[in-house]
Amino acid sequence: MTSTIRFLGQNEAIKIDEDLFNRFGFKVEQLMELAGLATAQAVYDWKPEAKKVLLLCGPGNNGGDGFVCARHLQMFGYSPTIVYPKESRNELMKGLVAQCEGMEIPIERQLSQELASFDIVVDALFGFSFKPPIREPFGEIIRKVQASERPIFSIDIPSEVPHFTPKAVISLTAPKLCMQYFKGSHYLGGRFVPRKMIDERELRIPVYTGSNQFVKLQ
Amino acid sequence: MTSTIRFLGQNEAIKIDEDLFNRFGFKVEQLMELAGLATAQAVYDWKPEAKKVLLLCGPGNNGGDGFVCARHLQMFGYSPTIVYPKESRNELMKGLVAQCEGMEIPIERQLSQELASFDIVVDALFGFSFKPPIREPFGEIIRKVQASERPIFSIDIPSEVPHFTPKAVISLTAPKLCMQYFKGSHYLGGRFVPRKMIDERELRIPVYTGSNQFVKLQ
Repeated sequence: MTSTIRFLGQNEAIKIDEDLFNRFGFKVEQLMELAGLATAQAVYDWKPEAKKVLLLCGPGNNGGDGFVCARHLQMFGYSPTIVYPKESRNELMKGLVAQCEGMEIPIERQLSQELASFDIVVDALFGFSFKPPIREPFGEIIRKVQASERPIFSIDIPSEVPHFTPKAVISLTAPKLCMQYFKGSHYLGGRFVPRKMIDERELRIPVYTGSNQFVKLQ
Repeated sequence: MTSTIRFLGQNEAIKIDEDLFNRFGFKVEQLMELAGLATAQAVYDWKPEAKKVLLLCGPGNNGGDGFVCARHLQMFGYSPTIVYPKESRNELMKGLVAQCEGMEIPIERQLSQELASFDIVVDALFGFSFKPPIREPFGEIIRKVQASERPIFSIDIPSEVPHFTPKAVISLTAPKLCMQYFKGSHYLGGRFVPRKMIDERELRIPVYTGSNQFVKLQ
């Protein structure tokens, strides 16, 4: 299946996002809700037996997907804990924080709990628009999580390829170039790309089945 | 299963909505996206073989759920057509209209096509905050659809009980009082009610399974 996929470069991924918002009139709250839900459902498909989930959330939209994912994971019966090292002043992010607080999901500034106490780690640190280098305290968190050998599920792209080696990734909208040689479990979410855009950009997005919000590519 | 359900009156349903927005900080775009998605998934569960779907959308949030549902139905392979008789000036609704237009979903002001050409009708005219009487042109549309005997799927509450007799209903958040003696297919969606609210209000919401966004109650 992977061989027929078209992988997106950073510029094209950014343009697709802009088109969804500016040309098709979507609100970021809508697409983030769908992306975070698809992520939580893919995590459930990947590790239904896991209980404690650590979510590492960055200050941008990838982190926002992580907050939404945490809410849905709690609905599915998981115990999520969020580590959110760098607070964003963005109103969207403040809202997402408030929702998780209302749902009594712990939100911490730093990695204070033993990593061994978590069954899995969801990496929502950086998305496709991230440009290196990684700054502290993110570098230290990534090194600690990597050393802990907890299974990592990355949202959209693994943060700081190749230092982070996730066991699973969900690509959102369409897979990005960095996923071309990925060997782990690979999901796709973001079932909201208008047919017109798929055709115009020849995106060749893999086929979702039924009313599912994610598809397992490998 | 139905016997243990607690059915909500109009005032309590309104208060729950207010709490979700004001106390828990949800944005209407987020919860409407989840409600519309759950509705589309329940429609898919109910009539996977249907092709042409007519969605009747009112000017309020129930109509908004209908617009979101239409988008997801198109993603699932249906051909949706929206009838939206009374245009809202609300920015939220304008955005939902623009998204459906971008996805080339036909939006009409009145019932112009033969009702017989549609396999099913989704009733997204009025929600739980509606207060009678029904004004024109809604009354006429309801009478025509009722006379056509097309199978009707209502969102949250059947518009104008008892004149509308849907074959299926999706209750959102929790079932409303008018559903107590409903005999058709009954779904529940809106898997976003915080545990704290469920406990405080003793909502006794039926149990969702796995990562599903709806549950079939009967």
